[in-house]
Amino acid sequence: MTTDKNINLTMLCDFYELTMGNGYLAAGMADRVTYFDLFFRSVPDDGGFAIAAGLEQIIDYIQDLHFGPEDIAYLRGRGIFSEDFLKYLEDFKFTGDIWAVPEGTPVFPREPLIIVRAPAIQAQLLETYMLCMINHQSLIATKANRIVRAAKGRTVLEFGSRRAQGGDAAVVGARAAYIGGCAGTACALSDQLYGVPAGGTMAHAWIQMFDSELDAFRAYCRTYPESATLLVDTYNTLQSGVPNAIKAFDEILKPLGIKKCGIRLDSGDLAYLSRHARKMLDDAGWTECTITCSNSLDEHLIQDLLNQGACIDCFGVGERLITAESEPVFGGVYKLAAVEEPDGSITPRIKISENVGKITNPHFKKLYRFYGRDTGKAVADYLCVHDETVDDSGTLEIFDPEATWKRKTVYDFEAREMLVPIFQGGELVYDRPTLDQIKAYCAAQVDTLWDEVKRFENPHRYYVDLSQKLWDIKDALLHGRK
Amino acid sequence: MTTDKNINLTMLCDFYELTMGNGYLAAGMADRVTYFDLFFRSVPDDGGFAIAAGLEQIIDYIQDLHFGPEDIAYLRGRGIFSEDFLKYLEDFKFTGDIWAVPEGTPVFPREPLIIVRAPAIQAQLLETYMLCMINHQSLIATKANRIVRAAKGRTVLEFGSRRAQGGDAAVVGARAAYIGGCAGTACALSDQLYGVPAGGTMAHAWIQMFDSELDAFRAYCRTYPESATLLVDTYNTLQSGVPNAIKAFDEILKPLGIKKCGIRLDSGDLAYLSRHARKMLDDAGWTECTITCSNSLDEHLIQDLLNQGACIDCFGVGERLITAESEPVFGGVYKLAAVEEPDGSITPRIKISENVGKITNPHFKKLYRFYGRDTGKAVADYLCVHDETVDDSGTLEIFDPEATWKRKTVYDFEAREMLVPIFQGGELVYDRPTLDQIKAYCAAQVDTLWDEVKRFENPHRYYVDLSQKLWDIKDALLHGRK
Repeated sequence: MTTDKNINLTMLCDFYELTMGNGYLAAGMADRVTYFDLFFRSVPDDGGFAIAAGLEQIIDYIQDLHFGPEDIAYLRGRGIFSEDFLKYLEDFKFTGDIWAVPEGTPVFPREPLIIVRAPAIQAQLLETYMLCMINHQSLIATKANRIVRAAKGRTVLEFGSRRAQGGDAAVVGARAAYIGGCAGTACALSDQLYGVPAGGTMAHAWIQMFDSELDAFRAYCRTYPESATLLVDTYNTLQSGVPNAIKAFDEILKPLGIKKCGIRLDSGDLAYLSRHARKMLDDAGWTECTITCSNSLDEHLIQDLLNQGACIDCFGVGERLITAESEPVFGGVYKLAAVEEPDGSITPRIKISENVGKITNPHFKKLYRFYGRDTGKAVADYLCVHDETVDDSGTLEIFDPEATWKRKTVYDFEAREMLVPIFQGGELVYDRPTLDQIKAYCAAQVDTLWDEVKRFENPHRYYVDLSQKLWDIKDALLHGRK
Repeated sequence: MTTDKNINLTMLCDFYELTMGNGYLAAGMADRVTYFDLFFRSVPDDGGFAIAAGLEQIIDYIQDLHFGPEDIAYLRGRGIFSEDFLKYLEDFKFTGDIWAVPEGTPVFPREPLIIVRAPAIQAQLLETYMLCMINHQSLIATKANRIVRAAKGRTVLEFGSRRAQGGDAAVVGARAAYIGGCAGTACALSDQLYGVPAGGTMAHAWIQMFDSELDAFRAYCRTYPESATLLVDTYNTLQSGVPNAIKAFDEILKPLGIKKCGIRLDSGDLAYLSRHARKMLDDAGWTECTITCSNSLDEHLIQDLLNQGACIDCFGVGERLITAESEPVFGGVYKLAAVEEPDGSITPRIKISENVGKITNPHFKKLYRFYGRDTGKAVADYLCVHDETVDDSGTLEIFDPEATWKRKTVYDFEAREMLVPIFQGGELVYDRPTLDQIKAYCAAQVDTLWDEVKRFENPHRYYVDLSQKLWDIKDALLHGRK
C-alpha cells in the first residue's frame, strides 16, 4: 500500500462498518447521536502502565475523511448497498466531537483514551482506523519506554525498519519509539517526515567491499572524520576489529585532533566483548570513543548486560522493539457507551460478557487523574459521568470498582482532566504539539508515576476508580434496572 | 505515514545506506558491481517451511526509485553528504538485475529468496525496503498457511486490521494472508486495492443500538436477507442470542424461501457453544445456517476446537494472524555474496561469524528444487554456482552442508530453477501473476511438500544442499584460501 499513493484511508475500515452504516440508514438511525469509548483491557508484558500514542495520525485521517467516486463505484459493485446510502457517502464528512488523552500520556486499562460523540454511521466508521493507529503506536511507545528505562540514562536508538510489519510500522513505529524515549532511529524517512533524528554508519557489506577491514575503516574515517562509528565484528571483534579501529583512529582522527568516535558490536558476547573493547580503547587513549551494541536486544537483555558490568554507551534496538516482540498486540477496543435521545438526554449502554473484565463502563464519561500536591505523583485515576465535577479543594472517597469495599480517601490532591477536546462539531480545536513536545511531556508524565508502578516484575496496580454515580448506573444496567 | 500521500518510498531506507553510498562514491566504488542475497535463517514457530511473499510491492518500489528535490534538500541539510553524491542521487535509478522466487513459493532457511546484481550504491540502498516487504509479508503468509492447514478445509477469514501494526500491516497483511490461504478479509481497502474478498456484517454496537437484540436481528435480516450472519453473544449466546437469531430467520428469511444464513460467536467456550448452537439451529430446521467463530484464535486453538468436535464452518482470525503473534519477526537478512572485477570475473565474498549459522553462502548462485518424478513431491533444494547446470536426466549425489558425510543420491527427479528474472538492466522482465494466481500457486506448491515437513511439532528438516563446487569455494574462504 505504501507504494500506492492514491489510496483513500477512509476505505481502511472493516467491511462491517459499511454494512452497519447502510443498515443504520435503512433503519432510520443515521442521525442518532452515539458515544463510543476507545480503551484497552490490559498492559502488554504485564507492565504497570502504557503510553498513549497515535492521535496525530487520527487527526490527519479525520480531516481527510471522504468517499471519492472510485470508492462509491467499488461499493456499488458489491451489490449490497442502497443507492440512498451511496448518495449519503458522497457528502460524507465528520461532524461530531472527539476527546482524547494527549499523546505521550501514561494510561491504564479500562479508561477511555478517546471518546467519540457523533451520528451512528460516522462514529462506527472510525472504529478500525482509530484502533489500528492507537493500538500500533501505543504498543511501540510503551515497549520503547520499557527499553529506555532499562538502559538507565544510556542512549537507545531504534534500528528495526527491516523487521517492521510493513512500511508504516517502520516509519510511524520510529515516531512512537521516539515518543517513548528513544533518542533516534535508523529510518531516514521517519526523520524526513516527523523529525525523528536518524543516523547510521555502515553495514558488514561496507567492510566486505574493501580488500581489508583496516582499509574499510580508513576509508570511512576519511569520509566521516567527525562521526566515525566503526562496525568491528565482521571477522573477529577483539583480534581484528577493535585493533584495526584503533589503528584507523590513530592514523586519521588523531592528526585532526578529533577525540569523539565510536565502535559498534553487532554479535557475540556483548558483556565480555564490550568490557575488553573498552579497555583496549582506553589503553590506546580513545577514552571518548563510545561503544554501541546491537543484536536482538530488549529491556531484559539490556538490564542483564548492565548487571554484568557491560561497557555500553548506546543500545541499538531492532526487531524486539519495532514489533514489540514479547507481546505484539495492544488490545484496544471501541465500544458503544451511550446514545442520545431526540430530547438531548443521554441513555447509557453496556455490553455484558461472561468474562467480567469484558463488561464495559457505560455512559458519556470524564476522566480525571489525581496528583498528590506534596509529591507531584499520580495517585489514582477517576472515571465519572460527564456532568460530574471533582472538587479538589477537599477530600474524596474513592473505591475499587472490582472490589467495592476497598475504599480510600484522597486529600491534598490536584485533579486534572485527562481527556481534552480534539474535534468539536467536526472542526479541529486542538493545538497540536510538536513531536519533541510530546516526547518531553511523556518523560515528565512517566516521572509522576511511583517506581512501584514502573517496575517490570509484578508492578503495583494503579487505581482507576469509578465515581459512585457512575458505579450506580453500571450496577443498575447489569441488574437490568433502568 | 499512510496519511501522507506525498512520501517517497526511496527514503524508506536505513540512514547507513546513504552514508555508505556517499562513502562508496568517495572511495571510487560507485560503479563496482555487487551481488547481494536476501535470505532468512530460521522458520517462525519452528515450522518446516515458510511462504515467500512481498515481491509485488518491491517491484513497484524499484520502478519508482528516485530522489526528488525535497529529498536532496533534506539530505543536504544533514551536512555530511558531498555535493558529488547529491548530484549522483539526482539521476538515481535502478540499472541492475534482480532474480527472485515467485510469491507463494514455500522456501527454506539459508537459500536466497532474492538476488540483486547492481552497482554498490544501488544494491545497498534497496536493503531496508526489500527486507521490510519480504519479512512482513512472508511472516503473515507463513502464519496464515499454518492456520489454514489447521482448519482442515474450513474457511478462514482475516479479521485483524484493528490490531495490525499500522495501516500497511492491515492492508498488505490481508493480501499476504490471502496468499497463504485465507478466503477473505474484513479489510475493505485490501479488497479495493488488491482484490482480497472483503466481507463483514455487524459489531456488538449494532445490537446495542436497538431496543432489543431481536429487533437488531430483524433489522439486519430485512436489510441483508441474502447474507445475514448474526452476532449472537452480546447478552447471552444460548439463552438469548441463538433463539433470537432463529426467530428472526423464521420471521424474515423463511417467507422469502432463503435457507442460507449464519451466526457468529465471538466469546465464551466456543467448543461448547458451537455444538449447542448447531443443535438448536438444526432442530429449528436451519441446517444450512453456518457458524462462524472468532476470539483470539490461532492454529493451535483451531486444532483444539476441532479435536473437541466443535461445530464451526468458518474461523475469523484476528490479532494472532495479522501480527503473527506467536513469533512476530521474520528474520530475513541481506548480505554481500560477491563483487564483480573490472574484467567481469566474479569474486565471492563471505561474512564469518562465531555463530556458524550466521556464516553466509558466498558467490553468485542458482537455486534448484528437485521434485520426484513418481510422487511429484519436493525432495531437496540445491544451491550451486551460477555457471553450474543440473542435469536431471541422471542421478546426482547431494550432501548436507552442515554434516558433509551425510550424502544421498537423488534419481528420477525433475530439477526446477526457483529464482526467476525480475529485472534485467533495470527493466522489469517479469510477467506479474494476479493475486489469485499467486494464491493458487502457493496452494499447489505446499501440496508438493511431504506431510512430515508440514506438521507443526518437530517437522522434518527439508534439505537445502550445496553443490560440491560451491562447498569448495565456501570452505576455501573459511580457511582464508583464495
